[in-house]
Amino acid sequence: MAYTRIHGVLPPMITPFKENGDVDYDAFVFNLHRFNEARLAGCLVIGSNSETAFLSEEEKLELVRLTVENTAPGRQILVGTGLDSVRETIKLTNACAHLGADAALVLTPSYYSDAMGTRNLVRYFTEVADHSDIPILVYNVTKYTHVNVTAEAIAELSRHPNIVGMKDSNGNVPQLATELRVADPSFQVMTGTFGAWYPALTMGITGIISAMANCCPDPIAEVQSLYDAGKLNEALALYQRWFPVNAAVTGKYGIAGLKYTADRCGFRGGFVRNPLLDSTAQEKKELDAILAAAMQ
Amino acid sequence: MAYTRIHGVLPPMITPFKENGDVDYDAFVFNLHRFNEARLAGCLVIGSNSETAFLSEEEKLELVRLTVENTAPGRQILVGTGLDSVRETIKLTNACAHLGADAALVLTPSYYSDAMGTRNLVRYFTEVADHSDIPILVYNVTKYTHVNVTAEAIAELSRHPNIVGMKDSNGNVPQLATELRVADPSFQVMTGTFGAWYPALTMGITGIISAMANCCPDPIAEVQSLYDAGKLNEALALYQRWFPVNAAVTGKYGIAGLKYTADRCGFRGGFVRNPLLDSTAQEKKELDAILAAAMQ
Amino acid sequence: MAYTRIHGVLPPMITPFKENGDVDYDAFVFNLHRFNEARLAGCLVIGSNSETAFLSEEEKLELVRLTVENTAPGRQILVGTGLDSVRETIKLTNACAHLGADAALVLTPSYYSDAMGTRNLVRYFTEVADHSDIPILVYNVTKYTHVNVTAEAIAELSRHPNIVGMKDSNGNVPQLATELRVADPSFQVMTGTFGAWYPALTMGITGIISAMANCCPDPIAEVQSLYDAGKLNEALALYQRWFPVNAAVTGKYGIAGLKYTADRCGFRGGFVRNPLLDSTAQEKKELDAILAAAMQ
Amino acid sequence: MAYTRIHGVLPPMITPFKENGDVDYDAFVFNLHRFNEARLAGCLVIGSNSETAFLSEEEKLELVRLTVENTAPGRQILVGTGLDSVRETIKLTNACAHLGADAALVLTPSYYSDAMGTRNLVRYFTEVADHSDIPILVYNVTKYTHVNVTAEAIAELSRHPNIVGMKDSNGNVPQLATELRVADPSFQVMTGTFGAWYPALTMGITGIISAMANCCPDPIAEVQSLYDAGKLNEALALYQRWFPVNAAVTGKYGIAGLKYTADRCGFRGGFVRNPLLDSTAQEKKELDAILAAAMQ
Repeated sequence: MAYTRIHGVLPPMITPFKENGDVDYDAFVFNLHRFNEARLAGCLVIGSNSETAFLSEEEKLELVRLTVENTAPGRQILVGTGLDSVRETIKLTNACAHLGADAALVLTPSYYSDAMGTRNLVRYFTEVADHSDIPILVYNVTKYTHVNVTAEAIAELSRHPNIVGMKDSNGNVPQLATELRVADPSFQVMTGTFGAWYPALTMGITGIISAMANCCPDPIAEVQSLYDAGKLNEALALYQRWFPVNAAVTGKYGIAGLKYTADRCGFRGGFVRNPLLDSTAQEKKELDAILAAAMQ
Repeated sequence: MAYTRIHGVLPPMITPFKENGDVDYDAFVFNLHRFNEARLAGCLVIGSNSETAFLSEEEKLELVRLTVENTAPGRQILVGTGLDSVRETIKLTNACAHLGADAALVLTPSYYSDAMGTRNLVRYFTEVADHSDIPILVYNVTKYTHVNVTAEAIAELSRHPNIVGMKDSNGNVPQLATELRVADPSFQVMTGTFGAWYPALTMGITGIISAMANCCPDPIAEVQSLYDAGKLNEALALYQRWFPVNAAVTGKYGIAGLKYTADRCGFRGGFVRNPLLDSTAQEKKELDAILAAAMQ
Repeated sequence: MAYTRIHGVLPPMITPFKENGDVDYDAFVFNLHRFNEARLAGCLVIGSNSETAFLSEEEKLELVRLTVENTAPGRQILVGTGLDSVRETIKLTNACAHLGADAALVLTPSYYSDAMGTRNLVRYFTEVADHSDIPILVYNVTKYTHVNVTAEAIAELSRHPNIVGMKDSNGNVPQLATELRVADPSFQVMTGTFGAWYPALTMGITGIISAMANCCPDPIAEVQSLYDAGKLNEALALYQRWFPVNAAVTGKYGIAGLKYTADRCGFRGGFVRNPLLDSTAQEKKELDAILAAAMQ
Repeated sequence: MAYTRIHGVLPPMITPFKENGDVDYDAFVFNLHRFNEARLAGCLVIGSNSETAFLSEEEKLELVRLTVENTAPGRQILVGTGLDSVRETIKLTNACAHLGADAALVLTPSYYSDAMGTRNLVRYFTEVADHSDIPILVYNVTKYTHVNVTAEAIAELSRHPNIVGMKDSNGNVPQLATELRVADPSFQVMTGTFGAWYPALTMGITGIISAMANCCPDPIAEVQSLYDAGKLNEALALYQRWFPVNAAVTGKYGIAGLKYTADRCGFRGGFVRNPLLDSTAQEKKELDAILAAAMQ
């Protein structure tokens, strides 16, 4: 299908690895089928939570191919194709487009993070968008990139015909308000973390790409349904109940903790790849307690 | 009056200085009378926006005395009394209590910022609260202190009978959500910046101490009134309209910019004290344009 | 005596407290007498390591008075008098001058750290120096102040007749090289940490104000003596041997660790003041091992 | 030739681009021949200053091939092969080894910078070193990676038979002292910036990989020669004279400024690649003045 404005939840899918470090494609497909049963608007493959930085180009394309093949019809498939190199980004984006991806979520270049001002980001995203066969979205995630996309850059990029939106994972709600204010009305601002989900909804944001959706997609969707139905207090209470789970799997316990929690919730998390380290027994115990508290 | 839970807006009052660096008490009293006509729930004196770090103890107490003398009845008077020294903080708090202040907003100690963990903050605020003649509120403002009060500290301190609330100026809405979740229900979480005001309201926060209230108190109160009346879209639109003014007077243009804008809005801003620098002609022109855009 | 260029080591003296939090003046005087026997060029009182942020004005002046009274003749007495307020800084500096201090080490103002650019610092230090009865030195310690004095500020301030030098505690040796290059030749650059002592010596720096001098002054002086005698390899080896002790008492274990180590070395460290916390048994054990390794 | 301990200077070579963004291989070879005439111990290709993040794998290998083909005999050729992925790093390292590179300088993985603790780095470098056909060196450059290799990691990695040294570009001289103290004696610590060169020499460091060597290699070598000859004051004076040039081309003016300065010094800098921006006319004027001051 073609890209359309998103109303709902997308998981930035984890990549399960075998103990020897190979990608566990069977586990990945298993997760895709489980996602098809969940209340999701689509999915993001080869994003930050996919340990994409550790994948070869061949592995990336195989994961995209499997996602297109195994995702229920009517759902959006986004691909995380941003690299520091403009040319490599365009090449990867168009290879994914050819496989059937609907849109590309393009990370800011980050190696020379101190130099990534407004003009640099406008130059980068404009050239990528000019040559991409599918629409692109800007991906702002300062904790990984140490780059923060300015309001001035969003104001300008949001008016490019092939840049249709952004995922802002900083959890900075006043910054989301600024982006909504300065962007072209056609441009979709999405939040990249459940930590900002309820306040984001109250400001008119309707899409979320949340790591926690890898293990617990339905509470995220339910917060949105309650909000849409005007049940604000119930939506806020549910958001508060699941907040600690999100904080755990996106913060202190990292991707290994997210994968362990996915295992506990009926998905197949698998191992992390070197140089990450799998969760310790103590960490698993703490995660169990945090999950149990939310599920009560 | 005694301290009561706040519903509304408090300005953290600027201190006008004369060109020779003396406090301009007349201008300060002028502002107090103007505040009495605005939609405010009270005021904060000798806080961060008062250039308190540049004041002598005598000047601080005279400003408190004048505030008590000139504030309309029924309004809350908060005093910013936090110092690194526990003993000096208690001494100043109780001197202010004697003058008629309702509660003290106590800044986190900050000189040894890297050492200010949960246990240190609990030790500090507990001893201050134990010996204060008026209730205290915790003041968290990481941009000035480089200390961020942990959720664990709030969970514990919020249960102290003489610690009645906090002002969190970080503008971090997920952190506000966390504070609301872990604190005792009797503990009032307030936001310290208009930048977080609309999303804070949607989470049940009803009090704000906002620098922008020194120049433009009524739009802040109006956002709250609209929200309280269920007019969410209008509240959000008004918040978005005044957002750039707040960003200007709390960020790029600093206290000098806040004072200049106060001058433009019928208050008396006065000069800043050394080592701050007054706004340049160019900065004033930019501030005029930002203010004009919001007032259209 | 009057201030003269420093050749040697000064301890930034700790302030011993009793368990009830009062200053233990007897212990302080005991330490002064021990310092008189060590290879020191003088001392600094009411500096960062004195927990000055927790002291009242009366306590500060009493510590200065005792220092003047109990320090061996011919040694320099520096006082740490910098406060955010220019007027309070001048007042305290001149009170110390009246008691017999030789020079004041003036901390950069820091509350509005983001606003402390070159022009602000020049404005501040110029006014302080213009009104001080004793020479002043600039104190740059970014880990506490979050302000870093620029080379441009040093170039200008070093030419003021009453600003005679600086203590740079950042341990940034290329920054020391820059300060030496841009400053007036009459201006003395000192290092504020043993961590930079050997490389500082190789660049012509001859004075150090080192926290480690509170417990182990003689190895610091010996590194300098060996260097002065042309025994570079021996100086470097001794520096390397004591490096871990310095890292421990200025970094991980903080002022409480410094005080404990002072106790172990024949000084009287005493308790820290709230909100700091005394060393745990485990920390003391680790400090013992680090000290023992250097003393072998 | 095989890798040997380095005594001298290596440029981390820039990659000249044409205006259309293609690699200008002719200009690159021109620079190699100019380097052959300079006082250099070898060179580093596809490092941070090569805009490697913007290069395709084919471009990287062609640059390595040309470097091997055009570098004077007896000089060391290092290649910057570190990627977040262990497997991709090994693959690229061994492809470069096959082309004739002497050793690989391996950047720390950085995408999940907050998670890169001692155990993660030991896991990563151990696996890379175990499978590399040439010796590897650890590359620590926190300004780009936001990762700082711990002393504990160096202590352990320096004992691996295939990890022969490191380049530390942080300019943190006390950290260099720590690395020298904890590392195996066979492990070579090099500095990655001229800003730390003189103090590094005084501590026994004999190798430098300096961006400034792309435009001004000889003053760097001359500082070392003077130091080796016991002319310490002359070495220090020369270091101080060239310090501002280094600060300019590694700091404020970035890689575009380095390339412009290379042009001015008889090399061929070429254009930068998107998203970097070429120097403005004003920046070029400032760089001319800084260079002229050092050359007087």
